[in-house]
Amino acid sequence: MADAGAGDKTEEVEVEQQNEEEQTASPKEMRAVILSGFGGLKAVKIMKKPLPTVGKGEVLIRVKACGMNFMDVMVRQGLIDSPPKTPFILGFECAGEVEGVGEGVTDIKVGDRVAALTEYKAWAELTAVPAKYVYPLPEGMNFLDAASMLMNYVVAYILVFDVGNIRSNQSVLVHSAGGGVGQAISQLCKSIQEVTLLGIASKHKHDSIKDSFTRLLDHDVDYVQEVKKLFPDGVDVVLDCLYGDDAKKGYNLLKPLGRYILYGTSSFVTGETKSFFSFAKSWWQVEKVNPMKLFDENHSISGFQLRRLLYQQGAHEYVRGVVIKIFKMWEDGHIKPVIDSTWAFEDVPEAMQKLHDRKNIGKITLDPSMEPKPKLQTKGNKEKDKENKNEQSAGEGTSQEATDAKTEEDDSAAPPSAN
Amino acid sequence: MADAGAGDKTEEVEVEQQNEEEQTASPKEMRAVILSGFGGLKAVKIMKKPLPTVGKGEVLIRVKACGMNFMDVMVRQGLIDSPPKTPFILGFECAGEVEGVGEGVTDIKVGDRVAALTEYKAWAELTAVPAKYVYPLPEGMNFLDAASMLMNYVVAYILVFDVGNIRSNQSVLVHSAGGGVGQAISQLCKSIQEVTLLGIASKHKHDSIKDSFTRLLDHDVDYVQEVKKLFPDGVDVVLDCLYGDDAKKGYNLLKPLGRYILYGTSSFVTGETKSFFSFAKSWWQVEKVNPMKLFDENHSISGFQLRRLLYQQGAHEYVRGVVIKIFKMWEDGHIKPVIDSTWAFEDVPEAMQKLHDRKNIGKITLDPSMEPKPKLQTKGNKEKDKENKNEQSAGEGTSQEATDAKTEEDDSAAPPSAN
Repeated sequence: MADAGAGDKTEEVEVEQQNEEEQTASPKEMRAVILSGFGGLKAVKIMKKPLPTVGKGEVLIRVKACGMNFMDVMVRQGLIDSPPKTPFILGFECAGEVEGVGEGVTDIKVGDRVAALTEYKAWAELTAVPAKYVYPLPEGMNFLDAASMLMNYVVAYILVFDVGNIRSNQSVLVHSAGGGVGQAISQLCKSIQEVTLLGIASKHKHDSIKDSFTRLLDHDVDYVQEVKKLFPDGVDVVLDCLYGDDAKKGYNLLKPLGRYILYGTSSFVTGETKSFFSFAKSWWQVEKVNPMKLFDENHSISGFQLRRLLYQQGAHEYVRGVVIKIFKMWEDGHIKPVIDSTWAFEDVPEAMQKLHDRKNIGKITLDPSMEPKPKLQTKGNKEKDKENKNEQSAGEGTSQEATDAKTEEDDSAAPPSAN
Repeated sequence: MADAGAGDKTEEVEVEQQNEEEQTASPKEMRAVILSGFGGLKAVKIMKKPLPTVGKGEVLIRVKACGMNFMDVMVRQGLIDSPPKTPFILGFECAGEVEGVGEGVTDIKVGDRVAALTEYKAWAELTAVPAKYVYPLPEGMNFLDAASMLMNYVVAYILVFDVGNIRSNQSVLVHSAGGGVGQAISQLCKSIQEVTLLGIASKHKHDSIKDSFTRLLDHDVDYVQEVKKLFPDGVDVVLDCLYGDDAKKGYNLLKPLGRYILYGTSSFVTGETKSFFSFAKSWWQVEKVNPMKLFDENHSISGFQLRRLLYQQGAHEYVRGVVIKIFKMWEDGHIKPVIDSTWAFEDVPEAMQKLHDRKNIGKITLDPSMEPKPKLQTKGNKEKDKENKNEQSAGEGTSQEATDAKTEEDDSAAPPSAN
């Protein structure tokens, strides 16, 4: 397989045993989830890092909960535009208590309960975030709910109301219906009268999410034919987070005045590590469109990418407005996050693999204070485990790899690993 | 010039004098504006045609007013997809009194005052239209207002509220700001709080329409730089009815989450007749877009074409809903059509040239009962007039050509002319 290489080569260098004591950070250090190099699950490590200092305009947050997104998997594989240099602390969202504020920050004070959309650095015990990306929590919202809602509902809100402009009596096709964004889209669409929601999800999820969608379809059967049977004229909106093959299918399912919206490219991810083949395939199989074709067919094509909007395009005031609306909807009882599971930092690789395999229903969250799952191995039985692993299929081997990652040495002072 | 050919060659065949009496239709005939062949203004003729019969599901309308649209100019030049065979009756909208209803028509009765979006055939004393394209008028709306509002406001409404999803505090760039659709967009946007409207129009119109727009720009100066000065981050929505060069400019003026909307291709029209060169140039200079680019840039591209939507894509129920909303807004005093001028059937060529030259401010309408302008010539002084015309510039010659067209013979039984 194209994606089995990079992770394995450096295994000997990476995995070393250490004392339990070393896992706990000293008073001037904190634990953080680090990406040591782009690639497989082994590149994800728990390390001790110096405590961050709070700069001008920044807020220092004692992190109580984090959210995991498919983007984190893509970051790990290096499948994003202008990635930072490794090693760096992973994670794009967290919630917690304010422990310090930098010069110029006037509307947030120490002790405030907040959530934040961070440009990396969220998966740590402490993080310093520009105040423009920090949002006070409404009364009664716990940190886990906040971290699980923030990014997914911001994305879903913008897709449903702004880019998608979904209105009464319209039909919407949603990919990855069981994921965090899919569930958020479903809840937000319920605030619009008579929206028909078609969700695409793996068959095994259908039972768990059947109340969220008007109809569920299986991505692995010919969903295009299914949609055409239900809506011979097509659907009003297609929300596509996959790209590649599904982009063309989605566009071709649009009815007149229909809108195809691309908000993710998860089809770039195939195996555990980056596959240039799948990347290139996804890219090239999508036809370019002349605006004249859209004029002839009465169609729209949109792209939406929150990371770009927030950090490169400076739309933080707009996003803040959306967060306020979402928190209001939560207070009014219109939305409620669906949390799949919560994990310790040490178990991030296993959680990531679950997300990669689309086995989650709702949001995957992290809790820095959580005890990791019991270890399955020590250095002594490493060789035996490796043999066992070789007998397993590539897909099944991942939870074993995840426990490997838990035993990472704190090598924050060491040079980045080779992978 | 590339566009001076087709119309002139057949001049001798087309222009013949006739008696005043022949201009009036017999009881079994009606007067209609006919396109005898695709090309210049001379292909537009007033002819006597047999009265239309009302078919199943149709409504027979005694036409009291008609609207002219830029699409009529494009139809005349053959610059549209799947044009009908010539000769045919021109015109896409009219208003009048119901004179008969076909089998199966239950919600409209003889004597009703209605407006209609017709697939051609509107510019005649009588027209038979499928009931699905016929809309009852609200009390107090006169035929001229109805015919002048219908298409422009339907287009504008869909652009502003559905495809454009224009919201409070957004900025909108509108091409052809002085035209019927431009004026309708301006009025509809006033129902949304704090919309900044940038209108592009010829300098000489600026005074007349300055109250409709926040700011007016001149298409002939570098409007891109002007917009960038006013909105360094770009605008939220670009409404482009030109295509060609302006498509790229428009797209590049979008801010994050901005939407470029193509709803017309009037740049295909250069001179009086079709120019394949300008057509091809417009087509090719517009870059094709990969959805991935939109994803990277947080942009949307949309196309909207009412004719296609209504007659090929069967969205008549949707359009009826829009008409009802527009008529309600008119009743509530929120909108009021801007009529540039009203013309007799015989003066259609002159009116068309005015529209072509973008000299109108608001809607150009026709009144079948109106007396034509006094004729300037007879067969006797034809040669002299031709000489005079040769001394004029191409642009100035048009009103003369228009009066030529008034003297067309009724040759409804004759074969189509050669151009």
